[in-house]
Amino acid sequence: MKYRLKIEVKLKPGHSDPEGETTARLLKELGYRVDALNVSKVYSVVIEAESREEAITKANEMCRRLLANPTKDDYVIVGEEER
Amino acid sequence: MKYRLKIEVKLKPGHSDPEGETTARLLKELGYRVDALNVSKVYSVVIEAESREEAITKANEMCRRLLANPTKDDYVIVGEEER
Repeated sequence: MKYRLKIEVKLKPGHSDPEGETTARLLKELGYRVDALNVSKVYSVVIEAESREEAITKANEMCRRLLANPTKDDYVIVGEEER
Repeated sequence: MKYRLKIEVKLKPGHSDPEGETTARLLKELGYRVDALNVSKVYSVVIEAESREEAITKANEMCRRLLANPTKDDYVIVGEEER
């Protein structure tokens, strides 16, 4: 079975986010009243697995082994069957 | 009123995504059965606006003026009131 997983990788609170800070500054210069801005990355991945649970287990592994830096990143996984 | 908006910016279909291709290749080398992988960016932004509609209108403007490249990017905006 195929499952599409969305994996959002974002900086842990307190870690410096230069891209977010620059984007917030530019938006303020354009006149927007921006209070806070964070940038994260989303991996939308289709993988083969026997069940939704296995797909999510594999996504957790993928985060630990490649996609996220455990020192500075948090990640959130949303799994659903591929239609 | 403050609104938190999540703005996802992703490549339009057919545009080359070298980061996604490299990530998919590395995951396959690690033994995962990856069928497809796309990378997108999410801006989570808190802005001040009079209403949810105004917040979303402003987010659309922000995408056109700064966050998205109209030639190669699609974007999706989800707006909700800041709690």
